Amino acid sequence: MSPSPTPATGLLTDKRVQRLSELPLACGATLTDVAVGYETYGRLNADGDNAILVCHHFSGSSHAAGRYATADEAPGWWDAVIGPGKAIDTDRFFVVAMDALGCVRRDSPHGVTTSAMSPNPATGRPYGPDFPPIAPADMVESQRRVLDALGVGRLVAVAGPSLGAVQAFAWADRYPRDVDRIIAAIGPTELQAKEIGLYRVMEDAIRLDPAFQAGRYDPESPPLNGLTVALKLMMLLAGGREALMAAWGRSPADGEGIEWAMEAWLDREARDRAGTIDANAWISMLRANMRWDLRAGRDSLEAVVAGWPARVLLLPAVADELIVPGAYHAPLESALRATGADLRVQVLPAAHGHLAGLSDIAFAADAIRDCLESPLTR
Amino acid sequence: MSPSPTPATGLLTDKRVQRLSELPLACGATLTDVAVGYETYGRLNADGDNAILVCHHFSGSSHAAGRYATADEAPGWWDAVIGPGKAIDTDRFFVVAMDALGCVRRDSPHGVTTSAMSPNPATGRPYGPDFPPIAPADMVESQRRVLDALGVGRLVAVAGPSLGAVQAFAWADRYPRDVDRIIAAIGPTELQAKEIGLYRVMEDAIRLDPAFQAGRYDPESPPLNGLTVALKLMMLLAGGREALMAAWGRSPADGEGIEWAMEAWLDREARDRAGTIDANAWISMLRANMRWDLRAGRDSLEAVVAGWPARVLLLPAVADELIVPGAYHAPLESALRATGADLRVQVLPAAHGHLAGLSDIAFAADAIRDCLESPLTR
Repeated sequence: MSPSPTPATGLLTDKRVQRLSELPLACGATLTDVAVGYETYGRLNADGDNAILVCHHFSGSSHAAGRYATADEAPGWWDAVIGPGKAIDTDRFFVVAMDALGCVRRDSPHGVTTSAMSPNPATGRPYGPDFPPIAPADMVESQRRVLDALGVGRLVAVAGPSLGAVQAFAWADRYPRDVDRIIAAIGPTELQAKEIGLYRVMEDAIRLDPAFQAGRYDPESPPLNGLTVALKLMMLLAGGREALMAAWGRSPADGEGIEWAMEAWLDREARDRAGTIDANAWISMLRANMRWDLRAGRDSLEAVVAGWPARVLLLPAVADELIVPGAYHAPLESALRATGADLRVQVLPAAHGHLAGLSDIAFAADAIRDCLESPLTR
Repeated sequence: MSPSPTPATGLLTDKRVQRLSELPLACGATLTDVAVGYETYGRLNADGDNAILVCHHFSGSSHAAGRYATADEAPGWWDAVIGPGKAIDTDRFFVVAMDALGCVRRDSPHGVTTSAMSPNPATGRPYGPDFPPIAPADMVESQRRVLDALGVGRLVAVAGPSLGAVQAFAWADRYPRDVDRIIAAIGPTELQAKEIGLYRVMEDAIRLDPAFQAGRYDPESPPLNGLTVALKLMMLLAGGREALMAAWGRSPADGEGIEWAMEAWLDREARDRAGTIDANAWISMLRANMRWDLRAGRDSLEAVVAGWPARVLLLPAVADELIVPGAYHAPLESALRATGADLRVQVLPAAHGHLAGLSDIAFAADAIRDCLESPLTR
């Protein structure tokens, strides 16, 4: 490979895997021989009290920062705020970015964590539709066990965007005494009826593809057409209205057989991404999200957040048309204010919609740094 | 049939059909032997100057008001504002509700207007994918010809919701001197990149269904599974976040094999509707919407609306997540204000999202009545 320009960050990383002999799930089943992929940036100090857990979004992986090689075109997805001297300062903190159980990725080096595409130890074949129903609480349990193996007890913070924020909320609910801060970007406290329906439509698109074969497809012949349609919908719901209009507008497509440039891009981009994702894992992850309900039968969000970690930083995106702030952020903000929490809110800008929680995270760099570095008052 | 209670309105109607020997289209093709369905409410006066044209939404038909029989469960979709003594008072006005060319419906008595499901005069078989590309301007041309046949020249108003508003805007653009008022609910002046993508996803869902057969399906074996998924997406985008949450929330489904009550309802409802719609016509109508661009190469919306009818009433829905008011309504309101138009704006309530333009139209009854009855100042 020819020499390439020095990347913006010097942070180099690699994918590691922790194995867990078993993992009991919220549904009652137990997974055996579980793998969890992770990456670390910075070093754990002697007291073991400088660790931050970073959790990823729906179609992401634990590649949150840095590059695997200096020639890599793009760094991890929160590289703008994770690194030496950055808001999540790896000169100070030991950052562990960890895969969510059920991670949908199958491209190297990402596809390492146990999911519906993993071999079922009982049969040697992929779980597929037999993969047990998982929930955000299961992601937290797997992460708690991996952190134990890494010698990390207490966390300075749990942080992440979208499903990463869901995991942070689930940490606050399950292990409030292990966590000092929650940094949650574009995250819902539950999935509401409209999004349950939209996620179901994504599943439907995959199931319409004859190659899906009720989930028993050959991994070499996956249902790429259906998965491409599902990904298009997720990209459109998460993407920014303004950014899409600025990029493609109402321009006609260049080629034959397609009418709009917007369609041509969407087709190309979604098909590329479909090659990095397993369809059964994607459905399993849709369902895990549909099950997300922080309140879970309790009387109020106030009752839930009363026992939360000392400080919470919320980063909603003002023009989020997937996790609409009025429906998803406002009730949590109210509940936290009602309990007198040390709450900070930094609204992310409009152009990229929901994806502001990824592409515009630098906008919140100062808020994140201050959240991590200013002394806690309780 | 046993006697049933007297319906809320006494208005009885029937479906009529006007045939046009030919219709030249914006794309350059010419349709021959075109049928256009319509209904009328009230009577044309002797001077022929009391007519109002009402245009319908994407999956609607010209059944805007009244019942075909007193036993009908539901009246037409704008019955709340069309009828004797109502906001669009059929004691005063001659209301013509007319199908849009390409109407997607195939259920009786709706499926009468020429669309992709109609027999191609050249072959005797359904046009299917050979149906020429249509646009809102073509709907207007067909309506202008039908009104000529009915003896209607000038219109007191063109009114409608969603695609009905698009047709009203297209009338204002094509025949401004024939129209005194525009009453446009939840209507866009163009389709933007995000919605072009979402409409493409609906088309993709139909094409994924093996029964689609590249559009050459047997009308007796239509691609109902794909069409059901497409309809689900349209229902979710147009539906109200609040209303969906109030109706279904996060309740589990009753039956086996389905997780959420929301999914069960969505499946049932969309499959019912799929039986009333032709898949090729639906794709043709998606494309007609994607082509909608009122500005169409002109410098500004101001330049377009400068020559518009005397009065415009806009009825955006405050929580519309399909035709988002900030993106779709605000620029038109600004343009009309800039030209000093006699502009009225009545915002429709939140609960039903985009569909407020149908289900909550009674909220705008006074605004519609005043728009129609107060004297024009220019």
